Amino acid sequence: MSIKLIGFPASGPLLKVIITLRELGLPYELEIPSNIQAIKEEDYIKNKHPFGKIPVLIDGDFVINESRPICTYLVSKYQGKHNNTNLIPTDVHKAGLVGQYVSYESSYYDPPISKIVYQEIYARKFQNKDPDPEVIKQAREELAKVLDVYEKILEGKEYLNGEYSIADLFHIPSTHYVYSIDAHSDLWDSRPNVKNWWNRLCNREAVKKTIDEIAK
Amino acid sequence: MSIKLIGFPASGPLLKVIITLRELGLPYELEIPSNIQAIKEEDYIKNKHPFGKIPVLIDGDFVINESRPICTYLVSKYQGKHNNTNLIPTDVHKAGLVGQYVSYESSYYDPPISKIVYQEIYARKFQNKDPDPEVIKQAREELAKVLDVYEKILEGKEYLNGEYSIADLFHIPSTHYVYSIDAHSDLWDSRPNVKNWWNRLCNREAVKKTIDEIAK
Repeated sequence: MSIKLIGFPASGPLLKVIITLRELGLPYELEIPSNIQAIKEEDYIKNKHPFGKIPVLIDGDFVINESRPICTYLVSKYQGKHNNTNLIPTDVHKAGLVGQYVSYESSYYDPPISKIVYQEIYARKFQNKDPDPEVIKQAREELAKVLDVYEKILEGKEYLNGEYSIADLFHIPSTHYVYSIDAHSDLWDSRPNVKNWWNRLCNREAVKKTIDEIAK
Repeated sequence: MSIKLIGFPASGPLLKVIITLRELGLPYELEIPSNIQAIKEEDYIKNKHPFGKIPVLIDGDFVINESRPICTYLVSKYQGKHNNTNLIPTDVHKAGLVGQYVSYESSYYDPPISKIVYQEIYARKFQNKDPDPEVIKQAREELAKVLDVYEKILEGKEYLNGEYSIADLFHIPSTHYVYSIDAHSDLWDSRPNVKNWWNRLCNREAVKKTIDEIAK
């Protein structure tokens, strides 16, 4: 029974799940809703996501939504079944710290970078609006402070928790979008540990394939 | 070796950890920083929390921060050791859905309720400012929509995932603060399933003890 994933191909949360599926060696089938209204309809709200959001994962008759718990579920169920990639360590203390770094992503990294993604990509593409330079300036300042902390965390380490984990993985989609804009890549490139970390993440097969696919 | 917890007694994130410790039957020692500046000092940033936040949990020589991952760590390590309370089910599908409901709390419930907590409590108490009625009005409308969804989720169920879990627990501190304000308790009381859910949560021993303690 194959895994079905519902979402829009360029969505950051969807990409988190796709990279996780690839890392774990799991085949899947992507179902793209016909439009944004389709995920606000009664049937979708009732059976897929009560808040009318994507992504949703359907694994046999099991339905789960929200990107981070979908990824954690996939790791709990399938890690080690198709390859040796470890995204959450089995040791309780190491797994605890992976959770801590996942929280850094959602609490500190995501809020400012999401503002830049919204201004530079979403507003331009879907609302035909120019980005607000003041919002971008403030978000860059906020993100720079967060990256200063990451620069210290990554000192002497290849990944946030030492070894690659879902904590690193969760940073990939938003970073890819903002790093790809020439005016913003300096935020990562000016910090050696952060730059090396980002290069390491980009060089993973699962990440390269996913980014190649959305660039098509 | 006892568990040490660092935080300010009235802080919502700290209360999540205290309720979890009590639910699991774990004794702990609370260390209250001397003031807000103490958690911005070099030693604290280096050894406790790189973003200068609370809570931090110290279990022997293991240090972990951020409330939600602290609670998950405590469950992974200690659930079933001191009593039979289950906060995360062992079944991979049930645990996946607990993660999903944890994400509903952080993504949909927490943002509007935090605005009300900030306006009604934090601004008044620490900044000597009157709450902004427009911000409160908008946050109430946003929270009301979220609670409409919760009313449906809770139909025929005692707790979000059927059985009590950390997903329910994470809602307790912010709900306690806002529900205690007469002008806002209608948000829960006007929705029968939500009202019963909240009453059930309030009647748990671990919750009663924690709330009694902060009321002192």
